[in-house]
Amino acid sequence: MRASVLRNGAMVYRDDVADPVPGEGQVLVKVTACGICGSDLHFARHGAQAIELSKQMAGMPSLTDGIDLGADVFMGHEFAAEVIEAGPGTQAPAPGTAVTSIPILLSAKGIEPIVYSNSTLGGYAEQMLLSAPLLLPIPNGLDPRHAALTEPMAVGLHAVNKSGIQPGSGAIVIGCGPVGIAVIAALHNLGIEPIVAADYSPARRDLAQLMGAHEVVDPGVEPTFEAWSRVGKGAPVIFEAVGVPGILNDVLRDAPHSSRVVVVGVCMEPDAITPYFGIAKEVALQFVLAYDPTEFSETLRRIAHGEIDVAHLVTGEVGLEDVGSAFTDLGDPGHHCKILVVP
Amino acid sequence: MRASVLRNGAMVYRDDVADPVPGEGQVLVKVTACGICGSDLHFARHGAQAIELSKQMAGMPSLTDGIDLGADVFMGHEFAAEVIEAGPGTQAPAPGTAVTSIPILLSAKGIEPIVYSNSTLGGYAEQMLLSAPLLLPIPNGLDPRHAALTEPMAVGLHAVNKSGIQPGSGAIVIGCGPVGIAVIAALHNLGIEPIVAADYSPARRDLAQLMGAHEVVDPGVEPTFEAWSRVGKGAPVIFEAVGVPGILNDVLRDAPHSSRVVVVGVCMEPDAITPYFGIAKEVALQFVLAYDPTEFSETLRRIAHGEIDVAHLVTGEVGLEDVGSAFTDLGDPGHHCKILVVP
Repeated sequence: MRASVLRNGAMVYRDDVADPVPGEGQVLVKVTACGICGSDLHFARHGAQAIELSKQMAGMPSLTDGIDLGADVFMGHEFAAEVIEAGPGTQAPAPGTAVTSIPILLSAKGIEPIVYSNSTLGGYAEQMLLSAPLLLPIPNGLDPRHAALTEPMAVGLHAVNKSGIQPGSGAIVIGCGPVGIAVIAALHNLGIEPIVAADYSPARRDLAQLMGAHEVVDPGVEPTFEAWSRVGKGAPVIFEAVGVPGILNDVLRDAPHSSRVVVVGVCMEPDAITPYFGIAKEVALQFVLAYDPTEFSETLRRIAHGEIDVAHLVTGEVGLEDVGSAFTDLGDPGHHCKILVVP
Repeated sequence: MRASVLRNGAMVYRDDVADPVPGEGQVLVKVTACGICGSDLHFARHGAQAIELSKQMAGMPSLTDGIDLGADVFMGHEFAAEVIEAGPGTQAPAPGTAVTSIPILLSAKGIEPIVYSNSTLGGYAEQMLLSAPLLLPIPNGLDPRHAALTEPMAVGLHAVNKSGIQPGSGAIVIGCGPVGIAVIAALHNLGIEPIVAADYSPARRDLAQLMGAHEVVDPGVEPTFEAWSRVGKGAPVIFEAVGVPGILNDVLRDAPHSSRVVVVGVCMEPDAITPYFGIAKEVALQFVLAYDPTEFSETLRRIAHGEIDVAHLVTGEVGLEDVGSAFTDLGDPGHHCKILVVP
């Protein structure tokens, strides 16, 4: 079987990966599309560091537990697929049914995240295994390339849910990459106004506006919080969706008193903050990660029913042979939003 | 009039400070006791840095606005006093009445914090001015030396209120200096159990136990979160009451999933954190500062009615001449909790 795997920090095309065989409770599927996530790029470059960080959190199960970077690593957790066949004694939708799932594989070994693994296939492959109880049929004839965006868009819904924001409050979204865009879409669905979105990239600002931002800001031209003062009222809920060192401290320094800040950008490096900024203004910081199954299925429903138009997000498509070059292309943040792998 | 003032980083005794004259709405009082706060020690050593940090928060009024470190600075914001006389046309309690107040002076110039000032006297002086509308008579014949502890103990009540903790949850208090002790007292008043308190100092651990901690931990002997696992259930609310660089990152690394962390220790220096620790566990961080007037008056009531026994906290008393040496003594965290200045 064909697949693209992480080997020594680069994505490598293989045509000799063993065909997966579904066990009890599992379903063999054909991957129809899989989005490339920024966290995959980060893991490719800084996998050893990510594993080391996770180990420091004693007693905390981690997505990187037991990974051997010396062997090939399967990735791809933003997938849509078609049922091929169910494992022994397993109820599943008919062959050919279009499905997606939260990226978790239930097996005799327990619960395995489908994200980084030396053994469990992800969506950068022709075929993979999913868990029958977790399968969601893709409704309404939705294009599988759009269904593949359920996972990253669910991250935005979760961040918005955890923020507790309610209509009547406004929001600032700092960073309009896929995570920021997902947050903007979920804020828009909730009727939040105004949504002020900041990014240095004109293409990303255009996308933010298409997805529901009422005001877009180039922080190189106007400081984000000044733009907020111009169009917003009261204390905004601030979504930090950049995830690089330095941003969090800027937010703490510039945010209004009593601000709520949701950290949804995943910064894997050490970061310097000045706690006094947060203290003097009694800022609340909520770190968030991922989504729950309800948020995932609700996001699929919204995409399938046109409440979130994800077509704008797809800026490229590659086959399994070209995942490596897509990883390189995504290094330029201004150009691409989401590249899909279509095996 | 006699006073102790900050001059070139050190507390200096003066007997030539001009007697304050109450304006309309103000009351001249005789200071009966004033606690020395850790933030005063920090300001004495790092005042320029504190002023610089505050300036970086554009548009944010600060406690240090307009201070000239080249001139004498009055300090002392944890005071009890006795009314001498009211300003012109001002209603006030009778002369001799024991009072305290939140450290704010209302004047023709506006609202001035009584904390660091080149002009507004604080409690390290024989006499000072207070605002008639903010005066609280000290009830129940309470010793003024204990009434002076209202201010630091209110900080603990505010932190506990902002945390949203409810009976049924437990708490961890990291650091048992005056701030941590104030948090422990407020948790104890609320019926929180267990309260696990951590400090390297045996004297501070003893004090924590006297004030309501159910389990005290020497982090040099047993990691704090292991002690929690031994006696607590579920996710604790964690109060970070140390305020030195490094502690916050330790908390993020070691806290259980979904922990709420209240940052009540005032770290004025830059600090390094690993956001990924917070992200992976969806930690919520609430920075807090000070208290509101209701929390202040409620704290005074609790102290006056024996619900908080602050006598244990007072580990020293000095006159105005010896404020400088008290500042030096407080540099050793294991020895003292609260030193009172009794003019």
